[in-house]
Amino acid sequence: MTDFREDGAAALEWAARYLERVDELPVLARVEPGELAARLPLSAPEEAEPFAHVLRDLDELILPALTNWQHPRFFAYFAVSASEPGILAELIAATLNQVALVWRASPASTELELRTVDWVRQLLGLPEGWHGHIEDTASTSTLAALIAARHVTGRNATVFSEHAHSSVEKDARMLGMEIRKVPVDENLAMRTDDLDLSDVAAVVATVGTTSFASVDPVRELADRAHAAGAWLHVDAAYAGSAAILAENRWMLEGAERADSLVINPHKWLLVPMDCSLLWTSRPNEFREAFSLTPEYLRTSDYVDSLSDYGPALGRRFRSLKLWAVLRCYGAEGLRSIQREHMRLARLFADWVEADPDWELAAPLRFSLVVFRRKGTDEENEAILERANRSGEIFVSHTKLDGRYVLRLAIGNFRTTEADVRHAWDVLNR
Amino acid sequence: MTDFREDGAAALEWAARYLERVDELPVLARVEPGELAARLPLSAPEEAEPFAHVLRDLDELILPALTNWQHPRFFAYFAVSASEPGILAELIAATLNQVALVWRASPASTELELRTVDWVRQLLGLPEGWHGHIEDTASTSTLAALIAARHVTGRNATVFSEHAHSSVEKDARMLGMEIRKVPVDENLAMRTDDLDLSDVAAVVATVGTTSFASVDPVRELADRAHAAGAWLHVDAAYAGSAAILAENRWMLEGAERADSLVINPHKWLLVPMDCSLLWTSRPNEFREAFSLTPEYLRTSDYVDSLSDYGPALGRRFRSLKLWAVLRCYGAEGLRSIQREHMRLARLFADWVEADPDWELAAPLRFSLVVFRRKGTDEENEAILERANRSGEIFVSHTKLDGRYVLRLAIGNFRTTEADVRHAWDVLNR
Repeated sequence: MTDFREDGAAALEWAARYLERVDELPVLARVEPGELAARLPLSAPEEAEPFAHVLRDLDELILPALTNWQHPRFFAYFAVSASEPGILAELIAATLNQVALVWRASPASTELELRTVDWVRQLLGLPEGWHGHIEDTASTSTLAALIAARHVTGRNATVFSEHAHSSVEKDARMLGMEIRKVPVDENLAMRTDDLDLSDVAAVVATVGTTSFASVDPVRELADRAHAAGAWLHVDAAYAGSAAILAENRWMLEGAERADSLVINPHKWLLVPMDCSLLWTSRPNEFREAFSLTPEYLRTSDYVDSLSDYGPALGRRFRSLKLWAVLRCYGAEGLRSIQREHMRLARLFADWVEADPDWELAAPLRFSLVVFRRKGTDEENEAILERANRSGEIFVSHTKLDGRYVLRLAIGNFRTTEADVRHAWDVLNR
Repeated sequence: MTDFREDGAAALEWAARYLERVDELPVLARVEPGELAARLPLSAPEEAEPFAHVLRDLDELILPALTNWQHPRFFAYFAVSASEPGILAELIAATLNQVALVWRASPASTELELRTVDWVRQLLGLPEGWHGHIEDTASTSTLAALIAARHVTGRNATVFSEHAHSSVEKDARMLGMEIRKVPVDENLAMRTDDLDLSDVAAVVATVGTTSFASVDPVRELADRAHAAGAWLHVDAAYAGSAAILAENRWMLEGAERADSLVINPHKWLLVPMDCSLLWTSRPNEFREAFSLTPEYLRTSDYVDSLSDYGPALGRRFRSLKLWAVLRCYGAEGLRSIQREHMRLARLFADWVEADPDWELAAPLRFSLVVFRRKGTDEENEAILERANRSGEIFVSHTKLDGRYVLRLAIGNFRTTEADVRHAWDVLNR
């Protein structure tokens, strides 16, 4: 159906051109709901079509309906980037089509995953001996952690900050766990003064909240959780990656005592979606929660399957892209990109602070600036809508104490100082 | 770090050569546990390396540790194939790096997913109006279905055949649901005579069990489940794809009354891992189980997010590969590949039946032959071990009434009659 070399060269050229010109495309898709759907055939074709038709329709149909996450002026949510070595590794992973159900079904996937996740553990300064593997997203990683926590403690309540990621609440709800949200202090960190953890399965500490990148008091939560027999899960999905910089290590103070911890290299370590790393310091108990293999069958020649540490049985060869990125950038390359992102965020925050019409709404953390124009919520919302509609930048918003505030998140490796300046200009227009 | 065109051409050439010579490689990896790990550096490099090093190590380190799922003589578990259009679509998906959290974050991913999954619905003859989306694997799809079932019914028990896939039990266990396994009849289908569903949340009917590809009585289970107020989930992960053939439609009789149903195009529809389709006939109730958006916020301009129908928030652009495969093969192309697989399975089963030393251990279903050499379990186990160690074929086994039986599953689109003959020769050697 396909001449792999010929169609492959065309696909590669399409990809190369996309990446070259992505900064000329509107950041946010300029389509109405249903606009693409209306242009797609209602049924699959009976007859085979050439791959060239797919590429043609990528240009004509798909491209206008993309929000361009690879765009250097994507500043919404948490900005991400899929770097070239990661993209090419995904081509290889799809070619190899490993289904790592058990060790023997893919020794390479199993062992490369364990090793590359351990590489990242070292870069973050997390304790030796932790067991790490890859899930698709932090939603799944935290789901797995809550399952393990409930299994180990026999309890059913989860405790997390009111600013924890929505996935934590969703996970707890899916599991039928009781949800207790804790208010934050003036630093937007979880309050601990009123915590009663005596019947709690899991405390989820967030290192880098979605709204403000604020950091919960991990060390204290570890003390409290363990004193009460609860499990401590650390959600460092966004910010955790930045602990590869010595100056950011403070955020993980106390995390060495966590029972589990998640970071997402698909956020700030240049790995394409999806790649979420989940470590546990209690691998045996963690595995017990998932494995259907009874302990007495774990003889000396039994080889651990990573599917015994999480929900899914079939596992894609995700470590290949992590491996390619870590090697083709090197630890130093990744550090310098993150350092630059933090410098750009500081710069933007300085402009905000220096301008009497604007103000920071929350302390600058990592590469996230939370700010607002002095004025009404409606004015800020209008600024955001206008800026995003321009196609030149994409920023998002959140609420702080009921007020509408803007978020500028830097995380794309193409983003330059000129892009950040451009964003400031658009917002001030 | 990477010259995308140059490194991309090298990666593509590596992939093309792999696919060309995969039939010359041993099917099952010939490494001992830990052998690859021992050859991998203990830490990530500090300095960037060229992408060429990754390709070199793919050959030297990774290749020997692969079990080659793309091999035409891979007959274990359920054989799969990642076709060329699907592989190239994964390259594009990684390039675009869409994170489809909500509609506006990727209108293209959201709308293409809804449409392509609907294309497959039509090809399978499932009812109009069903809501379908993509999860990573059937483990997750069934997990989602059980969550919805518990939410809707307020009950906590799950009922499934003793031959249901292990993921069903694992899912129920993760959710803390009560597990009731039901014995099978002489056709290896779930018995229904003793079923009491009065306090049951979900009945999982399997269409194509993992061990034998046997089919549970879906229509009767639908009647019984609905009479008792229980949810009916149909796990057709492997076999369901084959309902694109008119002669296989019988397997889904009654499935039109299911509350949810899963099939995996990464198994028998040439789509690379991972791509599991989950439909529900009760989208509103299904969504209620997952969405954190309260109903009163679903105003007329609210656009549905697919993350509201399953566990994960961040969603990869998986529909791109499904789209490419459906278009580049066409429905007719896919049907003819499946028909050939079923013909080859029939042929192999005929050889088994015609040989006085061998016997079929279960009725032939779809493309799975379950058989054994007349003799002891030990003899059969030795045959399997020797055959797999040869590297020429990879078959797996299961137990039936305590006896060791062999499984030959045909599902790779490179598999020819010569490959099946080769397997028969190796087993008889």
